[in-house]
Amino acid sequence: MLDVIYKRQVAKWDVFEVELKGKTEGNPFTDYNIKGCFKGEHEHIYADGFYDGDGVYKVRFMPSYEGEYTFLISESFLKDGTDDIKGEFVVSEARKSNHGPVRVVNKYHFSYEDGTKYYSIGTTCYVWELQSDELIAQTLESLSVAGFNKIRFCVFPKHYDYNLGEPRSYPYEGTPIDSSVLTSDNFNDYTASLGNLKKGNDWDFTRFNPQHFTHIETCIYELGKRGIEADLIVMHPYDRWGFSQMTKEQDDLYWNYVIARFAAFHNVWWSLANEYDLLPEKSIDDWERYASIICEKDPYHHLRSIHNCFAFYDHTRSWITHCSIQRQELYKTSELVNEWRTQFGKPVVLDEIAYEGNIQHGWGNISGEEMLRRFWEAALRGGYPGHSECFMSDDNILWWSHGGKLKGESWKRFQFLHDIMLETPGYGLMPYEKCGWDEICGVPEEQKDEPIKDYYLFYYSFMRPSFRTLYFDDKNEYEVEVIDSWNMTIEPRGPFKGKFNITLPGRAFMAIRVKRAGLSQNSR
Amino acid sequence: MLDVIYKRQVAKWDVFEVELKGKTEGNPFTDYNIKGCFKGEHEHIYADGFYDGDGVYKVRFMPSYEGEYTFLISESFLKDGTDDIKGEFVVSEARKSNHGPVRVVNKYHFSYEDGTKYYSIGTTCYVWELQSDELIAQTLESLSVAGFNKIRFCVFPKHYDYNLGEPRSYPYEGTPIDSSVLTSDNFNDYTASLGNLKKGNDWDFTRFNPQHFTHIETCIYELGKRGIEADLIVMHPYDRWGFSQMTKEQDDLYWNYVIARFAAFHNVWWSLANEYDLLPEKSIDDWERYASIICEKDPYHHLRSIHNCFAFYDHTRSWITHCSIQRQELYKTSELVNEWRTQFGKPVVLDEIAYEGNIQHGWGNISGEEMLRRFWEAALRGGYPGHSECFMSDDNILWWSHGGKLKGESWKRFQFLHDIMLETPGYGLMPYEKCGWDEICGVPEEQKDEPIKDYYLFYYSFMRPSFRTLYFDDKNEYEVEVIDSWNMTIEPRGPFKGKFNITLPGRAFMAIRVKRAGLSQNSR
Repeated sequence: MLDVIYKRQVAKWDVFEVELKGKTEGNPFTDYNIKGCFKGEHEHIYADGFYDGDGVYKVRFMPSYEGEYTFLISESFLKDGTDDIKGEFVVSEARKSNHGPVRVVNKYHFSYEDGTKYYSIGTTCYVWELQSDELIAQTLESLSVAGFNKIRFCVFPKHYDYNLGEPRSYPYEGTPIDSSVLTSDNFNDYTASLGNLKKGNDWDFTRFNPQHFTHIETCIYELGKRGIEADLIVMHPYDRWGFSQMTKEQDDLYWNYVIARFAAFHNVWWSLANEYDLLPEKSIDDWERYASIICEKDPYHHLRSIHNCFAFYDHTRSWITHCSIQRQELYKTSELVNEWRTQFGKPVVLDEIAYEGNIQHGWGNISGEEMLRRFWEAALRGGYPGHSECFMSDDNILWWSHGGKLKGESWKRFQFLHDIMLETPGYGLMPYEKCGWDEICGVPEEQKDEPIKDYYLFYYSFMRPSFRTLYFDDKNEYEVEVIDSWNMTIEPRGPFKGKFNITLPGRAFMAIRVKRAGLSQNSR
Repeated sequence: MLDVIYKRQVAKWDVFEVELKGKTEGNPFTDYNIKGCFKGEHEHIYADGFYDGDGVYKVRFMPSYEGEYTFLISESFLKDGTDDIKGEFVVSEARKSNHGPVRVVNKYHFSYEDGTKYYSIGTTCYVWELQSDELIAQTLESLSVAGFNKIRFCVFPKHYDYNLGEPRSYPYEGTPIDSSVLTSDNFNDYTASLGNLKKGNDWDFTRFNPQHFTHIETCIYELGKRGIEADLIVMHPYDRWGFSQMTKEQDDLYWNYVIARFAAFHNVWWSLANEYDLLPEKSIDDWERYASIICEKDPYHHLRSIHNCFAFYDHTRSWITHCSIQRQELYKTSELVNEWRTQFGKPVVLDEIAYEGNIQHGWGNISGEEMLRRFWEAALRGGYPGHSECFMSDDNILWWSHGGKLKGESWKRFQFLHDIMLETPGYGLMPYEKCGWDEICGVPEEQKDEPIKDYYLFYYSFMRPSFRTLYFDDKNEYEVEVIDSWNMTIEPRGPFKGKFNITLPGRAFMAIRVKRAGLSQNSR
């Protein structure tokens, strides 16, 4: 009798999993397969499964509808002549906290699949999930307290300055190079993508380490519970083990395994790479091939992008759902959202606009004020800013890679911005190009009735006006609020009509929100 | 007997003046002329003179050499048959504080004519000289305390927000429009360059008001005594009187008068205009004609430039000695010095990179920290930054227009930068393009011996590294100083050899100066 393990009920957008025992001879990762067909009234999904070690094969499914479903498993890991594996299950309504995968709406913006607004407030902790249980718990707590709703992190371990220790696990069977020789001064001499892959690694790239992936799944699940999207960086160049220099076949095996394991989690995003252009052995053809694997094998069409070091990937490619941007120059970062929106015609996610901190590198030592300024500049232009922190630390635990505790000042102020963004009528802001040259102004993306608009969010960035003169029209009344983005205060003023002055405290980081009187919240 | 008034002795680069009484019939400003020929062993200068009112005609000369000189006056304002007016005088050595006019050296930099280094630390007080005696005295005191060595100001009075009162004098005989009707809200309705020149002005554009010019000369002289260059803005668009809309003939008469009066002052620079492109009635041909008048009539070849609002004037024009730049965008200002040096191949003077303050306009409300940051960014790239202040004030006295007392924070820190600039070997810094992407580095313009250099000035701007790793070569020793540009401290470190780390406090606005051990100051 087959040992089929699955729950007979699952909530919408949760993971339905079928687990079967089977052959262990040969290499189960490559010699056998498992696939599932999941059928309900409104969808019919085929999904690849994966070998999870110890003779266990699994296939996962994320239902997008409620109701009765059936499944049918096709496989090659059971004895010939085994009966079809099939069954039934019921999909109940989604848990209250699960709004489904994040989707692109309105060309430049996001929402959850159930229509709930999603304004990305992201952070980066590259390998937080490969740290100790204690540190992981601390990171999850920090993420929740800060209110982040997206985190970027890597499937592979990371080799880089401040990242020279051993990860808690490796993705493959085998043994790593001796890391005790590594120092901040010599680590580049061991970096594969710099042509310095050293002998001493012994990996079987055809045999995964299921514990590595199971653990990442636990982390994705824990993020999901907290309303945090897991922006998975599937490849990256910070490598001393050769994971960035596998063959095409090995890469494809990895991509299929990653997708089979992770795609059924509602909160997964696919980041094909961090700094794809620092992987000299991967060509554009390779990246396009990985993309085609995702497009083919991810039945849920999770968000897909790819992050640059120098040159942007061509974000107009049809498989790319949103831009994942590292700023290309030292001075202008979020300020370029207008250009990027126009250039790519997609949501602009600013995953790297320098990080708050004090390490030696210019990408990791801006002030909290500057980080927050970049957040507001991005958000009001209709972009989605991202955070991280790089503070020097005796224990070498830097949020940017390891997670842990937040030490900076900017994160305390993101929830305030997020709350304001949630009050945007419709989905998302767009830059109001006709505003003054010395102000940033966001207006609702969906509001097109020029010249009278309903909702304006002005921001003065590093400027410190003691007042501003506003004029919209002679007919309508406007409610005005003076917002201090740093001190997180909202002071109501008004109503006003015609041309009027709004006094400001002559400090930086001030904003003014203007709503046409009578505009009902979210009623657009 | 003719009443010839002049001193028989003058110091080099001071003003030698011949004053004669003559006809007053008709319009002496246009009907008669006076010219001087001044001849010494090393120079032979022709200079136009001017009518100074009350029957007095003057011609001025600035000698550039010591020794015996003769002069010969030609004129048309004396009775026919009058004997030649001629004489002799002796030019003694320059006063200690007078180093002569500022000249371009080394393509991108300045020095005084006697070879003394000149690093411009400029400010703008558009019509400081047209205020009360008390305010003028206060401005001169403030300039000296701050250590400014250049000030931009206008010959014409200014009509603009915060500039609605009456100037102490007008340049022409006549009467102005009633200014009591003007308000901050309606002043644009009276602005000539916006097409709104109102009736009510009654000027004779062929009759100057000599007191207006005499007073400006006193101010130029007082600046000169304090080592401050007078960057004269000869035309501008902030006008309710029609001074910006005179005919070609009237303009040319004005230019000739200005040059005849002011050119003999060693510390004069010619700024053809502030925001030339806001004067719609002046064509490029007009500006080029004014330039040709200066080139022909200024015997001393004072520095010449022209300042923009939107588009730069073509600073490659041969008559332009240096770029006078107003930044063209909100975010990047001084950071573009590298580009502008390459584009124009001339000294880059950043006359307007926004001003410290808190008024409503984005060009006048940056913080002291940001102003100072722009100064350092400019200086280390081999450019010449300029300051002003626009603080709201109950008495409506804003440094930017009226002078008075300095209220900001940046000015207190310019002398510190200036002292550091003076220690640059040779004349001027240039950007070291091979430095890290996350640092600004200036090296001496004249130092070309790659790869080993003698003198580096690194700046970290808004970044906050806790340390930086430096490496120049394995052979030489380097003396290192850690400079806090805001707190004005210089902390010696070193010497170092090979690859070494310099710890920093993890604050913004830090710099590191590196000198090869054994480099003798200014010995290049």
